Amino acid sequence: MFKINENYLKLPGSYLFSTIGKKVKAFEQANPDRNIIRLGIGDVTLPLAPAIIEALHMAVDEMGVQETFRGYSPDQGYEFLRKAIVDHDYKPRGVDLDIDEIFISDGAKSDSANIQEIFGPDNKVAVCDPVYPVYVDSNAMAGRAGDYLPEKEGWSRIIYMPCTMENNFVPEFPKETPDMIYLCYPNNPTGSALTKDQLQKWVDYAIEIGAVILYDAAYEAYISEENVPHSIYECDGAKRCAIELRSFSKNAGFTGTRLAFTVVPKALKCGDVSLNGLWARRHGTKFNGAPYIIQRAGEAVYSKAGQEQTKAQIAYYMNNAKVIREGLTQAGYLCFGGVNAPYIWMKTPDGMTSWDFFDYLLSRAGVVGTPGSGFGPHGEGYFRLTAFGSLENTKKAIERIQALNR
Amino acid sequence: MFKINENYLKLPGSYLFSTIGKKVKAFEQANPDRNIIRLGIGDVTLPLAPAIIEALHMAVDEMGVQETFRGYSPDQGYEFLRKAIVDHDYKPRGVDLDIDEIFISDGAKSDSANIQEIFGPDNKVAVCDPVYPVYVDSNAMAGRAGDYLPEKEGWSRIIYMPCTMENNFVPEFPKETPDMIYLCYPNNPTGSALTKDQLQKWVDYAIEIGAVILYDAAYEAYISEENVPHSIYECDGAKRCAIELRSFSKNAGFTGTRLAFTVVPKALKCGDVSLNGLWARRHGTKFNGAPYIIQRAGEAVYSKAGQEQTKAQIAYYMNNAKVIREGLTQAGYLCFGGVNAPYIWMKTPDGMTSWDFFDYLLSRAGVVGTPGSGFGPHGEGYFRLTAFGSLENTKKAIERIQALNR
Repeated sequence: MFKINENYLKLPGSYLFSTIGKKVKAFEQANPDRNIIRLGIGDVTLPLAPAIIEALHMAVDEMGVQETFRGYSPDQGYEFLRKAIVDHDYKPRGVDLDIDEIFISDGAKSDSANIQEIFGPDNKVAVCDPVYPVYVDSNAMAGRAGDYLPEKEGWSRIIYMPCTMENNFVPEFPKETPDMIYLCYPNNPTGSALTKDQLQKWVDYAIEIGAVILYDAAYEAYISEENVPHSIYECDGAKRCAIELRSFSKNAGFTGTRLAFTVVPKALKCGDVSLNGLWARRHGTKFNGAPYIIQRAGEAVYSKAGQEQTKAQIAYYMNNAKVIREGLTQAGYLCFGGVNAPYIWMKTPDGMTSWDFFDYLLSRAGVVGTPGSGFGPHGEGYFRLTAFGSLENTKKAIERIQALNR
Repeated sequence: MFKINENYLKLPGSYLFSTIGKKVKAFEQANPDRNIIRLGIGDVTLPLAPAIIEALHMAVDEMGVQETFRGYSPDQGYEFLRKAIVDHDYKPRGVDLDIDEIFISDGAKSDSANIQEIFGPDNKVAVCDPVYPVYVDSNAMAGRAGDYLPEKEGWSRIIYMPCTMENNFVPEFPKETPDMIYLCYPNNPTGSALTKDQLQKWVDYAIEIGAVILYDAAYEAYISEENVPHSIYECDGAKRCAIELRSFSKNAGFTGTRLAFTVVPKALKCGDVSLNGLWARRHGTKFNGAPYIIQRAGEAVYSKAGQEQTKAQIAYYMNNAKVIREGLTQAGYLCFGGVNAPYIWMKTPDGMTSWDFFDYLLSRAGVVGTPGSGFGPHGEGYFRLTAFGSLENTKKAIERIQALNR
């Protein structure tokens, strides 16, 4: 008789955003006249930029003609896209990468979930708390997380690194020595960033203890401050200890278009074994490339027009972030983030729990955000708002919250 | 110090198609004047059908406008596509499926590699020999295959089911009892098909021993005979024991466009646990949907024009298959397949090994095929040609092979 992967049964039931969805739906049904503003999920709302649309149409036309039709793409992605990435995202920051160190994929969610596969089952995993749930769940599914302990709201074999206002949302080196360290900066959900000095300390630490850093830089396009690195490879030695995950979802609005890439430097080794070779093998065996037309869309992000247009979109979202941060601060709330990231992380008032504040904002202001506790126990007492709405709705939401003020 | 997944190191080195690629490249460099015809890799060559191109352009336009822009898609895929699949691929064959039993993905290679994840590490896996390498390699990476034994050209914990001309390429039930059984019909690489009665016997067997069948039906559109089932769910009881993998790659030319789906019936259970729920959890945690515009392209495959145009493409390829089969038979070769599948599986002449025949065809006729031994030890002495070339090249290749005749 076949057996299932028992690790799946250990996963706690409901996913954060489905719980939110259900609560909002119930509220809407009970209050059909109320207008709801959603600043919860981190999904973009602006359409794809004209340069990207043009590239998509051109690539579609190519696929309709015998001479320019494309079948299976190279496993790691087309060279035109990998070259554009190396030339635009890395060279200008003093980072030299070979195009064979770039792996094109269908999304950073897939990559951040799949990357653990090339590591052994006994590695100890460290994550920030609060954290993007995929890092933890993918390791739990692979049996690396141990057991879920409801009283701890966490897994027995995962090392949690609290990130709170007390440490300015920068984790301290954990007491227990980790083998795999997930870091996401600019951070989802706290909206915080690391300076280059702060990140260099993590690189030095990883090299010292022989750990690998899985660095999620999906939000790097939102960085506005000079001393914040866009890539972990701006730090000395990072090529020997870090894998970097990047995405087109947030810098170019590809959440529904699906394109991302992962950097696995050839210098990153375990003994004699190059992790680049392992990931190449995984890519070649379990993936068959991103669609040609989508890879052409990715290339267009790096064109002159594409750069101007996507930068304008990011500026639009970051203006929303400013509206939220300043409006809430004025209203007496304690706010973090929103300077190098599209997320505002606020302290709930009067010691309210995250979910109580969720209910309060929904029922009193018709505004949907995300309870901080949904990202981990140290998110309790915090609340996340995103800058991805329209300016009009963002302003309206903040006015409503200000009007509540007691 | 972090550890890697040691199972990766057990994988035998070179991938079949890279070895072929290198040999062909070397031959071309040594013989720059020779014209090479490639009938090796199973990649389509006809451009996307006009109805699909039109749908792609429309969807691209939607993505460029605020009101119709789409962000994250539903995890399992858009309802419009899942409904089209249920209505066109299953209902007309008397198979009732709920749209929640359909999971849209970025390709059948990904699905056939990932599906093993929801099963426990101790399951015994049975595969046909010869076989599509992804089934075996994905299980090897997960540690389910044991050790690679070079002398056996196979893995210690995999049950191999020989498929040769002696059993008409239909495997017999193995002596050892399997938990997971991979079946691919119409078959890659042998081009053979199972009748409904033959497949029903496998379904009955799986139910009897408590095994799950992972049924790869990527080539179902090439079936020309009446008594050959297009879906395993045409067999009684299959919903209780089988997962079906389907693809748009071969029925609509999506090899470079990337779209597929997997059917996990709700009735398929291990004890109380529904595999549909497990796969939904995997999908929701490690995947973020196929691109919206590609899903619209998939929908267009089911339109009236899309059906006519893609059927014409399949007829074109199947005419190539006929040209190969009849031409080689005339030349005295023993040929199989090519009736319900785009692959012709031929016996090498005079007891030549598969690789000797590869070298012989390349050097003497300038024709590239795939050595049968690359798909497993029982593929030794066979050779695969594909029907995906142009009619002109296919004819030319066969004429060249006929001219060699001794």
